[in-house]
Amino acid sequence: MKLVSVGTVAFDAIETPFGKTDKIVGGACTYISLSASYFNDNPKLISVVGDDFPKETIDLFHSKNIDTEGLQIKEGEKTFFWSGKYHQDMNSRDTIDTQLNVLETFDPIVPESYFDCDILMLGNLTPAVQLNVIKQLPRRPKLIALDTMDFWMQIALDDLLAVIKEIDVLTINDEEARLLSGEFSLKKAANKILTMGPTYLIIKKGEHGALLFDKNNNVFSAPALLLEEVFDPTGAGDTFAGGFMGYLSSQDEITWESMKKAIIVGSAMASFTVEKFGIERIKGLNKEEIDNRINQFKEMTSF
Amino acid sequence: MKLVSVGTVAFDAIETPFGKTDKIVGGACTYISLSASYFNDNPKLISVVGDDFPKETIDLFHSKNIDTEGLQIKEGEKTFFWSGKYHQDMNSRDTIDTQLNVLETFDPIVPESYFDCDILMLGNLTPAVQLNVIKQLPRRPKLIALDTMDFWMQIALDDLLAVIKEIDVLTINDEEARLLSGEFSLKKAANKILTMGPTYLIIKKGEHGALLFDKNNNVFSAPALLLEEVFDPTGAGDTFAGGFMGYLSSQDEITWESMKKAIIVGSAMASFTVEKFGIERIKGLNKEEIDNRINQFKEMTSF
Repeated sequence: MKLVSVGTVAFDAIETPFGKTDKIVGGACTYISLSASYFNDNPKLISVVGDDFPKETIDLFHSKNIDTEGLQIKEGEKTFFWSGKYHQDMNSRDTIDTQLNVLETFDPIVPESYFDCDILMLGNLTPAVQLNVIKQLPRRPKLIALDTMDFWMQIALDDLLAVIKEIDVLTINDEEARLLSGEFSLKKAANKILTMGPTYLIIKKGEHGALLFDKNNNVFSAPALLLEEVFDPTGAGDTFAGGFMGYLSSQDEITWESMKKAIIVGSAMASFTVEKFGIERIKGLNKEEIDNRINQFKEMTSF
Repeated sequence: MKLVSVGTVAFDAIETPFGKTDKIVGGACTYISLSASYFNDNPKLISVVGDDFPKETIDLFHSKNIDTEGLQIKEGEKTFFWSGKYHQDMNSRDTIDTQLNVLETFDPIVPESYFDCDILMLGNLTPAVQLNVIKQLPRRPKLIALDTMDFWMQIALDDLLAVIKEIDVLTINDEEARLLSGEFSLKKAANKILTMGPTYLIIKKGEHGALLFDKNNNVFSAPALLLEEVFDPTGAGDTFAGGFMGYLSSQDEITWESMKKAIIVGSAMASFTVEKFGIERIKGLNKEEIDNRINQFKEMTSF
């Protein structure tokens, strides 16, 4: 199935307890597309960068057969930049600097060649921009997934609720699920969020794994892999989403069974990303190491 | 296999966001024995109470075929009492009152009829008392499990390390694993703790489930059941331990496979305890509801 992803392609500067980076390539759509490329033979990307964005990364996208027709390159402008520092527990971080640059006026344009998209992944962005992408598609995709964050719940809740109404899968973390629903119990939170539009809800719990809920009261729990070190969590959630959507796009049908397997695939892909800074680990994986990682999840959970 | 459990039989007074209780029956060994009684036909208990302890609860033990020969009843003395209040998130609590009473001078005596014990569960107690029980047994049990807490790591670390050396299974929570090992990563923490004596380590993560580690680098992850409400978490860890050890005692052999299943059984039993105050839920279960609960775990994790 044809997969289109929308989100940032950006620069990050990251500090963790294990070290710090200069400006490196990051962005939700970078992680999503790279991760999906291991399961989809031509993932399509929609984003925007400035003319300071490295040609090598665009070449990397092409080497993974990622379609960049939807990537706008703004002459004379600068790429979105985020800088942050993680705390010891790696579950929380402080933003040190945000330079929106090209993102400030980002108006995504869906190329005609993307119109027959079956699966649409809306990475974390202004909810109005996410809705704008859905509206440009002449035929509704079979599956629309959306990632968002607490920030939009606080400053653009109405817009967020409007786009959530139009989607099939929502991915948020546990604190965001509590914020969006006003419920502390994740089970109650899930039940409430599933009345807002989506058929499926994924709650990401970082080192504690992820939960998948549907409207039929089904629940699936995936662990996170236990790594000796989480070196840099940046992009883990987006890599998860890319593996998840990439795997689904490789299936004939979207069912509860394929959704569960997709959660495991996404978790396996995310476990690579956190092993090194940025896209270092995710950019050059092979099928065997991915299969081994997925098997580790199988061993960790089967009884 | 014959199962002996040591620990407190006590009174609790509990306040949660959902309500509060007067003095009700609690204590680690109460939960362990009741939980184990669904899998073992004659679990044996070692503990101490005062003469204020209700005969009905001792009758309840007998109705579950729990052997109370090892329960000392001290005339003219009072039963151990603990009172606490849980915070909104139910993961943390404040102790309001602790009255050691009979526990202050507790000197457990292992009855001769317990000497052929195959499986020994040492509930959370002073490490020196736990070691004392092991030493009274003329033949080492096949499996010794020990539960402890941060308090003993802080005030009696040497004693704790001495008893940990003698056991096969250690059960602690994630913060305690970090405290005991000095490692933040749970994988590193587990590796370090497994050099201290035990063959298996169980890390309890409350609403995030439990992890089982062994010395061969195997890891198993069990989720917690997603309940609409956790009404009262008191005794959840002990109920887990009781289900875990009870299930193991019903098996012919202790293997990695039986340990994994035992973790699921323990998790299922704990999920009952938290649904009501105290032992209310755990005291009258039937086989069918236990089997259904175990199946829910199967559905939640199989892909």
